[in-house]
Amino acid sequence: MASDLAQSARRIAADVEALTGARYTLPGPGITRYAYTDAYEATLDYFRSAFEALGFEVWSDPVGTLVASNVAPGERAFGFGSHCDSNRNGGAWDGTLGVVSALEACRIAGDSLPLRVISFLEEEASGFGQMLLGSRIVLGAVSDEELASYEDEHRVPFLEAAERAGYRPHDHARAGEILDGLVGWIELHIEQGRVLQDTGARLGVVDAIAGYVHADLSVHGRADHAGATPMDFRSDAGLTAAEAVVELERIVRSHSPDTVGTVGALTLGPGIINVIAGAADMTLDIRSVSGDHEKVYAALADFVRRRAEARGQRMELRERNRVASTPMDPHVVEALERAAQISGAPWRRMASGAAHDTQMVARRIPSAMLFVPCRDGISHAPEESADPADAALGVQVMLAAARELLSD
Amino acid sequence: MASDLAQSARRIAADVEALTGARYTLPGPGITRYAYTDAYEATLDYFRSAFEALGFEVWSDPVGTLVASNVAPGERAFGFGSHCDSNRNGGAWDGTLGVVSALEACRIAGDSLPLRVISFLEEEASGFGQMLLGSRIVLGAVSDEELASYEDEHRVPFLEAAERAGYRPHDHARAGEILDGLVGWIELHIEQGRVLQDTGARLGVVDAIAGYVHADLSVHGRADHAGATPMDFRSDAGLTAAEAVVELERIVRSHSPDTVGTVGALTLGPGIINVIAGAADMTLDIRSVSGDHEKVYAALADFVRRRAEARGQRMELRERNRVASTPMDPHVVEALERAAQISGAPWRRMASGAAHDTQMVARRIPSAMLFVPCRDGISHAPEESADPADAALGVQVMLAAARELLSD
Repeated sequence: MASDLAQSARRIAADVEALTGARYTLPGPGITRYAYTDAYEATLDYFRSAFEALGFEVWSDPVGTLVASNVAPGERAFGFGSHCDSNRNGGAWDGTLGVVSALEACRIAGDSLPLRVISFLEEEASGFGQMLLGSRIVLGAVSDEELASYEDEHRVPFLEAAERAGYRPHDHARAGEILDGLVGWIELHIEQGRVLQDTGARLGVVDAIAGYVHADLSVHGRADHAGATPMDFRSDAGLTAAEAVVELERIVRSHSPDTVGTVGALTLGPGIINVIAGAADMTLDIRSVSGDHEKVYAALADFVRRRAEARGQRMELRERNRVASTPMDPHVVEALERAAQISGAPWRRMASGAAHDTQMVARRIPSAMLFVPCRDGISHAPEESADPADAALGVQVMLAAARELLSD
Repeated sequence: MASDLAQSARRIAADVEALTGARYTLPGPGITRYAYTDAYEATLDYFRSAFEALGFEVWSDPVGTLVASNVAPGERAFGFGSHCDSNRNGGAWDGTLGVVSALEACRIAGDSLPLRVISFLEEEASGFGQMLLGSRIVLGAVSDEELASYEDEHRVPFLEAAERAGYRPHDHARAGEILDGLVGWIELHIEQGRVLQDTGARLGVVDAIAGYVHADLSVHGRADHAGATPMDFRSDAGLTAAEAVVELERIVRSHSPDTVGTVGALTLGPGIINVIAGAADMTLDIRSVSGDHEKVYAALADFVRRRAEARGQRMELRERNRVASTPMDPHVVEALERAAQISGAPWRRMASGAAHDTQMVARRIPSAMLFVPCRDGISHAPEESADPADAALGVQVMLAAARELLSD
């Protein structure tokens, strides 16, 4: 068993390493690959060849989400997978490790289990600015109008790019067929945080994925000379923005402890040392498993509106995305827990603060996720790193859980 | 007198208008001209021709500050002037109006008074990043080492650029000679605030120029995934920066009412919606007449250091400039007040929150300033605007004060 695990870890490491090659990424530091680029299509080809070598049938949904199975489409099977696109200048492990681990599970299981692997298109929003795009399309959560409105940075429409790459995006309503017959779904993924590392656990059994609101908040005040404008004559947009940042933390901490709130970007306009900020633009990322992120978002918007009005300023709030929190399926979670316990390795039950395709899959299929640690919690960066031995352990646990759930 | 004022206003308007022409500005919105550019040299030529047409002698200090006089260099005279460089994409009035008004004063006075006009080089820091550079050189406040270290945005050294433009910058120690023999100095300038407009005054007699500290403050925390990192696991640099912005206002308001403090620029790194800020960079602009800006600066630095340490972060504070507040000369101020009172126009005594070349001149020569309103306080922008009639009134008041002070 120990030598099996070591061999499995070596195969996983070799796949991850291979996919850092020049043909699988756009130029620049780290990994950059996203929908319909040559680097992305080459990555799909890598997996296509590997699955065909195992005797699996490989096909795509209408927009390019890749599917591989050792049983016919629509037949009863257990699903594994993730995504193999990256954020720009990201790491080698986020998403890709989940597809590599699913491939490794198929290598180990052979024909002993009916399995289906899915690699969802465009999870990271790198190409068309839309997170979880492939899995949202599979779940029928994207309308024709929305899909027609998406463009890449060069203003190439999503529909045109998909057609050029050889897909049939106008049939996207049929994408959901790739989930037909699945009795369960497990996504293995790096944690992207430091909870596993800091608590010495090698596996995290995920029982819920946090919901979130993503929004852009702008405050419009008045730009004046920093020296010539007494404090009582000012309408400083930066001050209102700074109060929002401080207040967001206060509100978050007064809600359930699974709630987090972040201002990741903040800029002032015109942004000159001796000019009072006439404008402030900031991003909001607020999440929770409990649903408290909705309350925090509303309370913050109310606070900023009042502070802006008190200064004669205008607040503008543009919501990018709002996703409800997603409980994982108790049977899948418990099957993973039993398998993790039998493995003898240290593990913990936890929530995922990050979004994943599984929150879409879980709307139709009993689902859960399995986390492995990543070094220092670093993700979305070239320095992203994980231990293939943890992933090999995860594959064993994932397979044991699938075997149990398929036998029910 | 009323028709004299109207004619004077027309001449001032014509000069300001002429200097918005294409040859007097670099391309782009508004006015952009700074040391040693063709646009700047053309502007100096405009004034050189105008003064020579009045029979004035025109010369330069060793770095390119322009001087014009109707008496020989070093002889007893009264000084008027300002600067004719602009910030990038600035307005037509800041500085330039002071040189235009000095020219108008010379037109009116002819040979009835010994006058010297100075247009200081590089007040706005647009070319070499150094505010009040020309007047600081004239006051001997810039060392050889400092001057040798200044570069433009293309890394061309100041000394090289000055030589190329035909000056003798290595003789900068002799620049101070242009103040020899001056019995007094008055700079007319737009207010760059809204105090005159909001109080219905047409002139502001400036009795002090605020001192200031300009600094860059950075906070180094740790960038983590916004979803996967619970609040207690974070070291959010943006939060510390936001607290600094809020605290700066609180500290400023607890000091003397002439104190102002501004964070004009603030950026977070990496600056992505779903990544906690690992770095925050902000500017500090803190001013006062009373000297309280020094206390505010020290108190803020202490606050940020403590907040950063509490989060395991590192604070970095880099001072750009520290200038003491400058009282104006009581005799010059009172002469301006008497002349303003006699004019019959509404006027007020006030401090300047903005920095001006006069704060350097005042170290050697009895000096004061005269403000005229600018529309809505807007300055350093293409929309900058002022009323030539106010400037014409200012010229009369300036001349009356000079006449009185020369007769003492």
